[in-house]
Amino acid sequence: MEKTKLILDCDPGHDDAVAILLAARHPKLDLLGITVVAGNQTLENTQQNARKVLQWVGEDLPVYAGCPGPLVRQKLIAADIHGSTGLDGPVFPPLTKELEAEHAVHFIIHTLLDSDGEITVVTTGPMTNLALAIRLEPRIVEKIHRIVLMGGSYTNGNVTPAAEFNILADAEAAHICFTCGRPITMVGLDVTRKVLCYPEIVERMKRIGNPASELFAALMAHFCRTQKEIFGWEGGPLHDPVTVASLIDPQLLTLKPMNVQIDLRSTQSYGRTNCDYFGYLQLPPTADVAVDIDVEHFWDIIEEGLRLYSEDKP
Amino acid sequence: MEKTKLILDCDPGHDDAVAILLAARHPKLDLLGITVVAGNQTLENTQQNARKVLQWVGEDLPVYAGCPGPLVRQKLIAADIHGSTGLDGPVFPPLTKELEAEHAVHFIIHTLLDSDGEITVVTTGPMTNLALAIRLEPRIVEKIHRIVLMGGSYTNGNVTPAAEFNILADAEAAHICFTCGRPITMVGLDVTRKVLCYPEIVERMKRIGNPASELFAALMAHFCRTQKEIFGWEGGPLHDPVTVASLIDPQLLTLKPMNVQIDLRSTQSYGRTNCDYFGYLQLPPTADVAVDIDVEHFWDIIEEGLRLYSEDKP
Amino acid sequence: MEKTKLILDCDPGHDDAVAILLAARHPKLDLLGITVVAGNQTLENTQQNARKVLQWVGEDLPVYAGCPGPLVRQKLIAADIHGSTGLDGPVFPPLTKELEAEHAVHFIIHTLLDSDGEITVVTTGPMTNLALAIRLEPRIVEKIHRIVLMGGSYTNGNVTPAAEFNILADAEAAHICFTCGRPITMVGLDVTRKVLCYPEIVERMKRIGNPASELFAALMAHFCRTQKEIFGWEGGPLHDPVTVASLIDPQLLTLKPMNVQIDLRSTQSYGRTNCDYFGYLQLPPTADVAVDIDVEHFWDIIEEGLRLYSEDKP
Amino acid sequence: MEKTKLILDCDPGHDDAVAILLAARHPKLDLLGITVVAGNQTLENTQQNARKVLQWVGEDLPVYAGCPGPLVRQKLIAADIHGSTGLDGPVFPPLTKELEAEHAVHFIIHTLLDSDGEITVVTTGPMTNLALAIRLEPRIVEKIHRIVLMGGSYTNGNVTPAAEFNILADAEAAHICFTCGRPITMVGLDVTRKVLCYPEIVERMKRIGNPASELFAALMAHFCRTQKEIFGWEGGPLHDPVTVASLIDPQLLTLKPMNVQIDLRSTQSYGRTNCDYFGYLQLPPTADVAVDIDVEHFWDIIEEGLRLYSEDKP
Repeated sequence: MEKTKLILDCDPGHDDAVAILLAARHPKLDLLGITVVAGNQTLENTQQNARKVLQWVGEDLPVYAGCPGPLVRQKLIAADIHGSTGLDGPVFPPLTKELEAEHAVHFIIHTLLDSDGEITVVTTGPMTNLALAIRLEPRIVEKIHRIVLMGGSYTNGNVTPAAEFNILADAEAAHICFTCGRPITMVGLDVTRKVLCYPEIVERMKRIGNPASELFAALMAHFCRTQKEIFGWEGGPLHDPVTVASLIDPQLLTLKPMNVQIDLRSTQSYGRTNCDYFGYLQLPPTADVAVDIDVEHFWDIIEEGLRLYSEDKP
Repeated sequence: MEKTKLILDCDPGHDDAVAILLAARHPKLDLLGITVVAGNQTLENTQQNARKVLQWVGEDLPVYAGCPGPLVRQKLIAADIHGSTGLDGPVFPPLTKELEAEHAVHFIIHTLLDSDGEITVVTTGPMTNLALAIRLEPRIVEKIHRIVLMGGSYTNGNVTPAAEFNILADAEAAHICFTCGRPITMVGLDVTRKVLCYPEIVERMKRIGNPASELFAALMAHFCRTQKEIFGWEGGPLHDPVTVASLIDPQLLTLKPMNVQIDLRSTQSYGRTNCDYFGYLQLPPTADVAVDIDVEHFWDIIEEGLRLYSEDKP
Repeated sequence: MEKTKLILDCDPGHDDAVAILLAARHPKLDLLGITVVAGNQTLENTQQNARKVLQWVGEDLPVYAGCPGPLVRQKLIAADIHGSTGLDGPVFPPLTKELEAEHAVHFIIHTLLDSDGEITVVTTGPMTNLALAIRLEPRIVEKIHRIVLMGGSYTNGNVTPAAEFNILADAEAAHICFTCGRPITMVGLDVTRKVLCYPEIVERMKRIGNPASELFAALMAHFCRTQKEIFGWEGGPLHDPVTVASLIDPQLLTLKPMNVQIDLRSTQSYGRTNCDYFGYLQLPPTADVAVDIDVEHFWDIIEEGLRLYSEDKP
Repeated sequence: MEKTKLILDCDPGHDDAVAILLAARHPKLDLLGITVVAGNQTLENTQQNARKVLQWVGEDLPVYAGCPGPLVRQKLIAADIHGSTGLDGPVFPPLTKELEAEHAVHFIIHTLLDSDGEITVVTTGPMTNLALAIRLEPRIVEKIHRIVLMGGSYTNGNVTPAAEFNILADAEAAHICFTCGRPITMVGLDVTRKVLCYPEIVERMKRIGNPASELFAALMAHFCRTQKEIFGWEGGPLHDPVTVASLIDPQLLTLKPMNVQIDLRSTQSYGRTNCDYFGYLQLPPTADVAVDIDVEHFWDIIEEGLRLYSEDKP
């Protein structure tokens, strides 16, 4: 079976970290590189966090730093959820894994241009890096197999009533990616709010007993605690890994093609992904929007992914 | 027990017609008058429809015609759902019941100003009449006990992905009412989409066997057919009567106080009711938003309301 | 010669006061009533100011109070320019002239509806009263001969870089009036900034030596002083009377038909009158926009108007 | 005297062509390279046009192609004014001068990063290239001496009533440049509309009798003809060269520091440069806005610049 080639563009972040763990070693995936953007924390923090995660589990994938802020709007970070480092919780050893010298946008551009086949681009943060790459070198677009993003919502947001964090943090970048002409899968809050990482899930993963599972448990303990403190709920939603899990098993998500337009003009509703769920506007669909998820299966994929770290890397 | 005094401002419309039936004769309610606005159909049609409904069941409540269009935006009607009359379906006898000469806005103003106590204003159409009354005579505001409206959504819309019909049809009017300073209950699509009028409901109401139940059945047969033709679903949502039912039994709805702001500035998201469900914005609540409904109980209230027409009017 | 029947809707304000003086007694004009709105100051102040001006010169025209605030947006006043009363400067005697009991909006509606011929409506403040009248009773529209407003700019504003005060203070009302379908003359900052009331003008008018000229001088002394303190210029622009003067002599202004659209959606540019001076948009003209004024002739008209108060009223 | 180092980013375009002629050989300027963007015509046309102009006068400056369209909005070109090639009029010989392989954005980045001192960036088209460079490599910002742009207007636009072409064509890019933190000179329509290239100016320049003056005459003949056909005026405004001329003589323009904000949110007023000429907003100035120009001196500078092509290149 051919592996799915992918680039993972992220802003770790606790749930991004799990997405990295899931993508880095899965036999169905061929992760070409990790590109990092400002989002859950500053770029300085997020690029370090990506390296910390890889170092922790002994993976040697290249990490590229990209844009330190959004295209047009003011920078927005999520320090309340992810802490002052963006990955508060675990105690990481001194960082030895190095950052690549190349700019993330250039890595995205030449990797796509140089590839024989198409490559999937997964984004779990603001879409700034991919958007800039598309605008700088439009010829990459035809080499994108599909964009799979965590972001948006067809119901309501998680930072404002209208908007989800990753889209709100750079709505213009999201607009560029959504309108680039390639297939796009929007994994929004509508499904990621269903994968709540309750204490029993943390326990289950911890029992695996390898470095990845320990990291998962340490991350989730912090993540769920801040979610509880801020929002009052048990079990934080594990947003980002849903994207990678859906590449491992395409049956995981129920998708519905919809016309999606991102509000760039409103003050109140800036960053809303207006998804025409019911087809009112009679416009052609522009994205495959996740409308349901097999939650039990998702946790099985997570467990399977973490168990891969029990063996030496093949 | 004291009756709840109310003015019903509506744009019949099939579901408005049921709201009228429910409000006109219920012993817990004291319906002071029916004011009509353009919305589901033109004002000429909606005011006739209000009279047709009352005439059908032999009620002699006064009907006042109000504004023929919205305050600021272009007029929007919903002929696809409600047909060319706005009340397609039943065959009404020639209309003999007369329209009051007074303008609906003036009726609202002097009824409120002249009242000893406070009056509840229920709106089941665009909120143009009430908004204009508030702006013309701000002293009425303190006489409003509460505004109870069918409109809006904290998830997604039913005309655009962002907006619900009644708000979209006159978002500026809704903004005026939402910011007038009085308590307001928003009965939005989030709950009205749950009261689906399936064929068995129509059957159940029809079996009551009085003029009101016959009218209900004839109206719903048409309403559910167009909903099915347009949206493909069985059982149209009976939006408007939820407002009146919630006055009959305040336990019907689960309400959650939220900060609600209506988007007047966006093109895409114009008319969205941005409801801060999770309290992200840390602003004071401005409306009591319906988040759940006891569906079985709702149909019981409807049945109880229709049965009142089996007896002569007290 | 037939007199021009007009209603003057204003928010006095120093320059409104001069417009009242000019309109009240001119033999070419038949001023049917003065309606007042909040704007330069609160409604309480502006309606008193209209009466003070009339009482000062012994005119007995009826004054009607209208809307205390704009249709949709938050209230904006201009206390910096016009002082805490809205008419700081002259020492007025105790107010004996009474306010009419009727609401300004109702006066506008019944005066238009009851008129045999058409009536010109001049607005020199936010257009709230006329807009509300149009929405409440659309049949008045065909009785409007022409709307002549002081407001807007096709270059730049005087409160924000984009917007002029009267439009900014209620852009939705202006939009309603501009789109009502009747001829409209926009007397904007583009011309009113040219009629600068320098000290020598004040001297010239003062020399007339009647109550009206004394009031003019007392008003202008204060007006020019605040303009100088705030903006640093000699000679404040006498905006509002240009409207009335243009009715006295239609040759006063050079008009150019343009498509005019008012920005209601922007935050930054809210209230801008986007006038298609060059016809870029290839849309039909919607307003006659003043592009030039015969400044010397304007002052002659003002002088002529003030001199009418030297004689007893005919 | 030290020469002013500059990069000229343009979208030729007739007036851009004159800006190139002026910048390429002037002894006070050190033109490091010409970067090209889509604007007056497609990128394919504008990069060819830059090369055609240089080849015509035997200049061997490098030309770099940049972005084929704007950052966020849909592409807009100005084929009505500049013809199907973007430089209609002269008959150019077959193009032999080559395009550099490097992307314009990369040229801008490494030229700035590698420079010992600061470099002035002049833009006479949509600001996409510079904006993308700033976002891709924020460290370049401190190496920018000043941005001097042709674009915007504090009065009214030349494509819509609100907006000037270069800003309208990529308002987001302009916003990025205006907020980057470096000094910026806005040479808008307010002054460029004063430098009208009447037939006598064309005659005067033609009489110089060298290749540059011949090119100028051929370009202006076409430019003025289309301006006349479309707008009806004699003498088209020679917008773009004012930027370069202001570097040759800083006394050419009268500048006024203003707070400038670009409207990105409005539909009607999108791309308006809201310049706070009068300081209403009491915000710190963000740009030096040209408010007047010494027109005679401008034509002298143009003549001086064209005369430089009468001699062999030094």
